[in-house]
Amino acid sequence: MKTIIILGSTGSIGTNTLDIVQRFPGEFRVAGLTAGNNIDKLEEQIRAFTPRVVAVSQEAAAVTLRQRCTGLPVEIVSGEAGIAQVASLPEAELVISAIVGAAGLVPTLTAIRSGKHIALANKEPMVMAGKLMQEEAHKHGVRIFPVDSEHSAIFQSLEGHRLEDVRRLILTASGGALWTVAKEELQHVTPERALKHPNWKMGSKITIDSATLMNKGLEVVEARWLFDIPESRIEVMVHRESIIHSLVEYEDRSMIAQLGLPDMRTPISYAMRYPERLPLDLPSLDLTAIGTLSFCKPDHDRFPCLNLGYESLRTGGTMPATMNAANEIAVDAFLNGGIRFIEIAEVIRQTMDAHTPKAVSSLEDALEADRWAREKAESLVHALPR
Amino acid sequence: MKTIIILGSTGSIGTNTLDIVQRFPGEFRVAGLTAGNNIDKLEEQIRAFTPRVVAVSQEAAAVTLRQRCTGLPVEIVSGEAGIAQVASLPEAELVISAIVGAAGLVPTLTAIRSGKHIALANKEPMVMAGKLMQEEAHKHGVRIFPVDSEHSAIFQSLEGHRLEDVRRLILTASGGALWTVAKEELQHVTPERALKHPNWKMGSKITIDSATLMNKGLEVVEARWLFDIPESRIEVMVHRESIIHSLVEYEDRSMIAQLGLPDMRTPISYAMRYPERLPLDLPSLDLTAIGTLSFCKPDHDRFPCLNLGYESLRTGGTMPATMNAANEIAVDAFLNGGIRFIEIAEVIRQTMDAHTPKAVSSLEDALEADRWAREKAESLVHALPR
Repeated sequence: MKTIIILGSTGSIGTNTLDIVQRFPGEFRVAGLTAGNNIDKLEEQIRAFTPRVVAVSQEAAAVTLRQRCTGLPVEIVSGEAGIAQVASLPEAELVISAIVGAAGLVPTLTAIRSGKHIALANKEPMVMAGKLMQEEAHKHGVRIFPVDSEHSAIFQSLEGHRLEDVRRLILTASGGALWTVAKEELQHVTPERALKHPNWKMGSKITIDSATLMNKGLEVVEARWLFDIPESRIEVMVHRESIIHSLVEYEDRSMIAQLGLPDMRTPISYAMRYPERLPLDLPSLDLTAIGTLSFCKPDHDRFPCLNLGYESLRTGGTMPATMNAANEIAVDAFLNGGIRFIEIAEVIRQTMDAHTPKAVSSLEDALEADRWAREKAESLVHALPR
Repeated sequence: MKTIIILGSTGSIGTNTLDIVQRFPGEFRVAGLTAGNNIDKLEEQIRAFTPRVVAVSQEAAAVTLRQRCTGLPVEIVSGEAGIAQVASLPEAELVISAIVGAAGLVPTLTAIRSGKHIALANKEPMVMAGKLMQEEAHKHGVRIFPVDSEHSAIFQSLEGHRLEDVRRLILTASGGALWTVAKEELQHVTPERALKHPNWKMGSKITIDSATLMNKGLEVVEARWLFDIPESRIEVMVHRESIIHSLVEYEDRSMIAQLGLPDMRTPISYAMRYPERLPLDLPSLDLTAIGTLSFCKPDHDRFPCLNLGYESLRTGGTMPATMNAANEIAVDAFLNGGIRFIEIAEVIRQTMDAHTPKAVSSLEDALEADRWAREKAESLVHALPR
């Protein structure tokens, strides 16, 4: 029986994680949960999984939740301190880090520093402070298991093979909702349209990132730190069907790949039970039913965000954190009708251009860059003509 | 420096193996070679790789070769005893088993019994006496590394994962030279046409096996013993491009696959240097240049040989050896114009129907079935109307 904590339990990854817990009684025990504002779902989860401690962002939500959960054996806490309390619950050995965006950095680092292994679904901690995260993980004897389907694929394709024999990592990209849309048309794309992902059902932030290919830019940064491979040996290939989740090429030109139908429960359960695999009762991938898999190169002209990911790594230091923060602001503005689709890349690019990078020697360095970039990006958003 | 022996050095696998030896000076030393009739090539190989002992099938060829190699520090022997001498040279740790057909069984078993690890390119030993081979390997602490591209792919896709988590092995098949040929037309197919393999340059026996899909039938048997997986969990999928060399599905519905351009040097070098990979200076697989990969189910109506492979395993005992021997006779007869393409399956089927299977408790049981089946198949070939 493995005791786990879920940071961000009401989101897509969090609910999929709890689905796995439910499917395999006796395998996992949930010690703690954290969530943002979805009190209704959180209450359900408390009743179903009986965590010992639950944290929400706002004390007001905690008050409501405490009332609703009167009589249940659960402690409900709030704010950064509350989330940190959950992230470091002593009885847990694994933390599923599934908070969306930069907000996941501090609690994930708290979990690492409490000596807990991490199933990392939240890519921003690695993007903002990848080197620091790995140094801390190393110091505390903690393993970081990727949950992102692409990184899980790379991780699985590296297992049993020698890291020194790796020639290239190849991340696959679905191309997102707008892959077939002409450049001129991208000007007028609505959030509704950009949210129609061809293969994966995910949260709205990551679905927009997928449409801009910024998701892949962030993943390049994440892969660089997760696998300690320089960005010059990380490639991106568009594979519309999202069946081959990513590949590793070795020095003998052999490639190992991980494939499957798009279902996050496969990578989540692998990270939860590594190195064992849980017999998930999901449909099998039948390649003969799919018929063909297709591959092409990314289009950097229509989707400039991917290259920003590489650029941020080449600059290094606080630049990836800056890019990530600007992206969060820009995506938010796009979803709220504040800017156009093609302006997302513009806001990020201009924020990066205005940034003076420095090394990330501490958490504060990353958070400071994050704060600065958010402010800068906000001002750029407001300066754009409506 | 690893000391190796090559059984069948003048064939396609043998020459590719020596190409690798040549590409990586200081990595391998060749202690012994065996070959059939290609004296010219063998002489070249002796001069280039200075093996200590070389064996040929016929003493007459040995006499010629001794004359040609006068003054060279090589002992030239012949016949079964000579081949056995080479297969058990004490200084070698790895034997590349690349003799075509049933003739490879005895020397491969000799090598195993001398405690040498095996790089197995010759599938017949596993087909004829798979259980026995594995028992002997286990007894002598010997590992058998598959060299066949499909089995190497499975082997590589199993590395680092737990055998108990395997759900299915999926062998890919190119479909061979005649995949697109209509059933009626198969009646009139010439050896020349059947020898035109779409992707791989191989010997003529295996190229015909590829066209009948018997190659895949043999591979199912081989996989059953190599990986100790029952045939009910081994599937075959047609994949015309021969890029995904095979796949493993795990219990969590995750699939791991090995991919690459069709070049036998990749699986050969992996078996030679396992678990390390040699930096082979071959073209990289660029999936975006290939564009699409396609998949479909095998056609058992036009290509009944694949099912014979499964049937032979379900019957068990000497039946796979019988099937294999009948196939060798039938393919030979087809290549020499003695029977038609579609009669290959007929000869095998009738030989199998006439066979009374027994357990393979010893090498002799397998060899006896082999002899019986050859005779039976020969008589069936001669009984067919010309």
